[in-house]
Amino acid sequence: MANLQDISLSAAINLLSAFAFLIAFAILRLQPFNDRVYFPKWYLKGIRSSPTRSGAFVSRFVNLDCKTYLKFLNWMPAALRMPELELIDHAGLDSVVYIRIYLLGLKMFVPLCTLALAILVPINWTGKLLERQHAKDLTFNDIDKLSISNVAEGSQRFWAHMAVAYIFSFWTMYVLYIEYKTVAAMRLRFLASENRRPDQFTVLVRNVPPDADESISEHVEHFFCVNHPDHYLTHQVVYNANKLANLVAKRKSLQNWFTYYNNKYERTSNKPTTKTGLCGLCGTTVDAVDYYAAEIQKIEQEEVAEREKVLSDSKSIIPAAFVSFKSRWGAAICAQTQQSSNPTLWLTEWAPEPRDVYWDNLAIPYVELSIRRLLMASALFFLTFFFMIPIAFVQSLANIEGIEKVFPFLKKILETPSIKSLIQGFLPGIALKIFLIILPTILMIMSKIEGFTSASSLDRRSAGKYHLFLVVNVFLGSIITGTAFQQLQTFINAPPTEIPKTIGVSIPMKATFFITYIMVDGWAGIAAEIIRLVPLIMFHLKNTFLVKTEEDRNQAMDPGSLDFPTYEPRLQLYFLLGLVYSVVTPILLPFIVIFFAFAYMVFRHQVINVYDQKYESGAAFWPDVHRRLIISLIISQLLLLGLLSTKRAAKSTLVLIPLPILTIWFHKYCKGRFESAFVKFPLQDAMVKDTLERATEPNLNLKAYLQDAYIHPIFKGTDFERPQITDEEEESPLVPTKRKSKYNSEMSSTEGV
Amino acid sequence: MANLQDISLSAAINLLSAFAFLIAFAILRLQPFNDRVYFPKWYLKGIRSSPTRSGAFVSRFVNLDCKTYLKFLNWMPAALRMPELELIDHAGLDSVVYIRIYLLGLKMFVPLCTLALAILVPINWTGKLLERQHAKDLTFNDIDKLSISNVAEGSQRFWAHMAVAYIFSFWTMYVLYIEYKTVAAMRLRFLASENRRPDQFTVLVRNVPPDADESISEHVEHFFCVNHPDHYLTHQVVYNANKLANLVAKRKSLQNWFTYYNNKYERTSNKPTTKTGLCGLCGTTVDAVDYYAAEIQKIEQEEVAEREKVLSDSKSIIPAAFVSFKSRWGAAICAQTQQSSNPTLWLTEWAPEPRDVYWDNLAIPYVELSIRRLLMASALFFLTFFFMIPIAFVQSLANIEGIEKVFPFLKKILETPSIKSLIQGFLPGIALKIFLIILPTILMIMSKIEGFTSASSLDRRSAGKYHLFLVVNVFLGSIITGTAFQQLQTFINAPPTEIPKTIGVSIPMKATFFITYIMVDGWAGIAAEIIRLVPLIMFHLKNTFLVKTEEDRNQAMDPGSLDFPTYEPRLQLYFLLGLVYSVVTPILLPFIVIFFAFAYMVFRHQVINVYDQKYESGAAFWPDVHRRLIISLIISQLLLLGLLSTKRAAKSTLVLIPLPILTIWFHKYCKGRFESAFVKFPLQDAMVKDTLERATEPNLNLKAYLQDAYIHPIFKGTDFERPQITDEEEESPLVPTKRKSKYNSEMSSTEGV
Repeated sequence: MANLQDISLSAAINLLSAFAFLIAFAILRLQPFNDRVYFPKWYLKGIRSSPTRSGAFVSRFVNLDCKTYLKFLNWMPAALRMPELELIDHAGLDSVVYIRIYLLGLKMFVPLCTLALAILVPINWTGKLLERQHAKDLTFNDIDKLSISNVAEGSQRFWAHMAVAYIFSFWTMYVLYIEYKTVAAMRLRFLASENRRPDQFTVLVRNVPPDADESISEHVEHFFCVNHPDHYLTHQVVYNANKLANLVAKRKSLQNWFTYYNNKYERTSNKPTTKTGLCGLCGTTVDAVDYYAAEIQKIEQEEVAEREKVLSDSKSIIPAAFVSFKSRWGAAICAQTQQSSNPTLWLTEWAPEPRDVYWDNLAIPYVELSIRRLLMASALFFLTFFFMIPIAFVQSLANIEGIEKVFPFLKKILETPSIKSLIQGFLPGIALKIFLIILPTILMIMSKIEGFTSASSLDRRSAGKYHLFLVVNVFLGSIITGTAFQQLQTFINAPPTEIPKTIGVSIPMKATFFITYIMVDGWAGIAAEIIRLVPLIMFHLKNTFLVKTEEDRNQAMDPGSLDFPTYEPRLQLYFLLGLVYSVVTPILLPFIVIFFAFAYMVFRHQVINVYDQKYESGAAFWPDVHRRLIISLIISQLLLLGLLSTKRAAKSTLVLIPLPILTIWFHKYCKGRFESAFVKFPLQDAMVKDTLERATEPNLNLKAYLQDAYIHPIFKGTDFERPQITDEEEESPLVPTKRKSKYNSEMSSTEGV
Repeated sequence: MANLQDISLSAAINLLSAFAFLIAFAILRLQPFNDRVYFPKWYLKGIRSSPTRSGAFVSRFVNLDCKTYLKFLNWMPAALRMPELELIDHAGLDSVVYIRIYLLGLKMFVPLCTLALAILVPINWTGKLLERQHAKDLTFNDIDKLSISNVAEGSQRFWAHMAVAYIFSFWTMYVLYIEYKTVAAMRLRFLASENRRPDQFTVLVRNVPPDADESISEHVEHFFCVNHPDHYLTHQVVYNANKLANLVAKRKSLQNWFTYYNNKYERTSNKPTTKTGLCGLCGTTVDAVDYYAAEIQKIEQEEVAEREKVLSDSKSIIPAAFVSFKSRWGAAICAQTQQSSNPTLWLTEWAPEPRDVYWDNLAIPYVELSIRRLLMASALFFLTFFFMIPIAFVQSLANIEGIEKVFPFLKKILETPSIKSLIQGFLPGIALKIFLIILPTILMIMSKIEGFTSASSLDRRSAGKYHLFLVVNVFLGSIITGTAFQQLQTFINAPPTEIPKTIGVSIPMKATFFITYIMVDGWAGIAAEIIRLVPLIMFHLKNTFLVKTEEDRNQAMDPGSLDFPTYEPRLQLYFLLGLVYSVVTPILLPFIVIFFAFAYMVFRHQVINVYDQKYESGAAFWPDVHRRLIISLIISQLLLLGLLSTKRAAKSTLVLIPLPILTIWFHKYCKGRFESAFVKFPLQDAMVKDTLERATEPNLNLKAYLQDAYIHPIFKGTDFERPQITDEEEESPLVPTKRKSKYNSEMSSTEGV
């Protein structure tokens, strides 16, 4: 086990490596040819234009102004400078509320850290249990001296720990309450101040029952004309365009290859060739440019045929529709009420924003949905507790003998002793690494199978699954040795009161491990985040091989977006660690605080300069974040209970039992108090907005505005799109131009470009 | 332990005692002077009139027609004869669905019983484990030979039990599904076919926020005029008339005493006296008639003053209101949507029927409500697991020495050996008995504290609490010896997989106990139910001392009503026993079947002839009943799993694990599919009824109809009631008169009166 000096050394190394990342970032971002990797958000907004267009040739690619390098940490204050309201305009509420989670971490842990260091550390330090035991030659380290392990069993000092546990829990709940209130208010203000958007007037209707005499479109129209006579305006049917979407995606990929070979041809004047088989690796050799041109033509014909078929065949209309109303009030009541006496037909819910719709899942009937959820719940259970079994199987296959059998020509290389040992050391881990990398994708596929209808809800569901996986396999898995499956077996065969004890006792021993984890995964991870290595490489590859025009360069730019289903559960792990160790080993808290402070700055910078949100859900994820924080709090309380009850303080730990009960009650209270702000839309607010709009724009042609808002993205930009469609972004720019340009110049000046 | 012969004897005795009850009932109900005890429902409907009015003096009181005594079981077919639709008209949907629970028991257990007796009993019987063990001198009985205990450990015969467990679970789920579907359809049909009722147009609004400038009434009116402009019709504020209600109740009680003494005076011509102190036991002696006349006058003055104060003082208006809409559609959307951005203000829900409103709870703010629920949840926990502690304390006090100390004059009597031993045997049990009798009342008070706003929801909540108590203390308490608190301790310290094993193993041993329980509590209890001993005595007491006019006699009549919060949880216990023993000791099933068949007949008779429902909730309790049945099913599956895993069949019992998972999924499926029929009101149905009404009654003055529908019952019949109020019962008789009278004559003829 490490002692304080080891930890300090490790902290120094990690701080240095994080610092190295930061310097690399500072240098890379100042180079003009990286501008589109580090400031794509501004390009997308049309505010920033290519610096490569003007100036000396070299300075188009490399920044030669030495002064700017001196201020290489300038991005940090710049990231903090934009006020929150402007940030909402600039990046959307989702991003702003997401970075508030880091701020919440600071609000929670800075006071906890101060208090714990001031009260608990002295109490633990003067406990001197370990020093006395030292004579008996037990291993212990300096970290342990600062932790609860240093207090003798049955000591009266534990009262201090229990009092502090109460204070911490109440403070956490207080901060959570204030935050929930703030976010709910922000969401309502955001929804109220928003410009007109199609989803405000639109309801997604699913499970339209079949009718013998009418088409789906007629049936929907008649139903809503009858049951919402004064409010129904229009509706849009949903086409099953999944096949067409596949064709379009294929065409785009072919077009990329065509451009690549064409560029190559133009540069070298040698006719490039390719092979017709798999990935151009096997098959007959042909002229690449001609081959791809022919392929593209072929697929374009298929596409046209499929497009006609989808639009003309009544079978390609799925039993779902987007129904629009004359007012927000009308849409609000339709979304919140039950339409038919069979509650599985005519299901209505708020339509997601057009960008947010997940088109593939709109047509799943109720029974199938119910079965899918059951299957996915069992799959998640097995994935969480038994994922080691297939990985162990793959590991047993992936040995050197196996590889030699499949690829005999590699035998010679593999038999070289140095390579052999390298591979033998590397192979066992690789299956697990690959699994962990693709895990979020697997979870997303599972969520898609569950049948959610919007990208935002898919993200929220995947985050929930990932959180479960991380808590079981990273948190518990690190504390208790053995696979999750073995843990499960232990827990099933142990009394429920034993579980917190077993885990609780191991908690203090793992403090150094988790401190290292926070530095490696947390600090260095965040520093790596800001460099954007993968997008950086991808952009330059594309830029070199595919880009001809400025428009191509815009296409090659990949701003990415906040990967909520991966980031948020990982973040929750730090909250869990902080809460669990706040009473047990308070010395861990400063590391958590540094993580949150650093991550807050980095993500604020990324949200301002890089990420482009895929959709805007209005912080609909907050109830999930809140629930998971409450779960962490309860876990921490139970583990403390378990730990203390092994310290011969069993009777007095009964004092802690009300804590989890109060926490659950607090959760229920918050749920009742705030959650509906994230689920429903109050009629009062709808009426206010309707009235205002009627007064300011009495001649608005709403029907034309909504006509084609919810067409499948595959039809956008084709003949399906009628001229009267208005893009809300164009019609109402998010930031007034004047303010925007001012802000832009401010940004540029601070960045010294 | 009892063997088969003992059980047969006990069954015979219980059958005979039940039979004796039935004969007593048959004789008592034929006596004209008991007519109002056994047929009050018909009196309330105004169809039956006093038989004491005409005929010879003796035959007014005693039935002298011998022939009618011969057909003393005639009420049974008569009870079954009324078709269900007519019964809904006659007694309401609540009662009809309630007696369908007994029918559901038959549908579930008759096939289970047949199958179990045909398959499992032979398999168990030929298991011969116990006979072989007989040599080792173990105690066993005939019942055990028919149970799973007779099958040797590790035997292949257990596959039969597991297969049957699957069949039973699937059959139960199938029956439950069909029943839920039927009840949901019945409810929707009932709501749709109903006559106009005030609650169809009315929404209960709670937590009206205070406003500095407006009164509550104005605030409500403005809010709904703005936010439901086309639909708002009128509203009624709620007065805090709890004190007034107390005064009225007190006056009525005094009036009863006044009548009693007045009657006594008229009969004996001696001036009766009373004492002014507690219950007329102490204080100065006064002339009773004058005293009560004076008291009544005093309280009447108080009442008038209080009534004026309530109606004039703005502080006696509580922040809640009944808001009525122009159409059912308008009320449906208001009840199902959120009004304000603060979800704890302007809470809307369907108004209960006027009879169903629980007025005391309308003014509780959200925070207080939330705290009350927390407190009551903990109280319920302690009541369930620790109720033995105060009872043991009372028992320790209530010994002979204690009584002698408090009442020294009883010393001589108590020292008599025979009386002493009687009291010593009797005392310890009496505290528990009294507790069990008042338990439903305690639970109802707890539900009232929780703040529900309708009598029906209070009943449902109390039933849930009582069910928990019965499962823990009667079912588990009988299987495992020791108090619930000791059980709790055992379970906390045992691994979760051990709990079903511990209980499961004891299950077969307790079969004889539960068979006796079914006969004593079930069969005899039902037979006692039909005699109505308490109302019989009360009616005759009142009839003798208080009744002067025919109207008084109607007042003295106490039809009672189905005591849902007591009856339904007890009933659930029989379902639980049947499901748990269906695989383990199938010989218990015939007893359950007989119970359900007998109870079905008795309650059908009571619903037709006796009970007068206090409110009509439209079978809103069915989701609760369904959920509790699912809980019983899961308990039975888990216990079977536990039992089999101790039989050295641990590996093969894994086959049973999917059963509880499937059951939980089934529950979720049913919830999604049917529950909303009990919570929401579909817009389509509302629209159909509105359209129909507009066509048939275009000139309806809805405002006048709704004006005073929701006034506190205390104001009914006073000057507050305006002439335009229409009573829905009078306006639209539930059964057309012609059919009713026909039915009435049919009933009379079959009963031979």
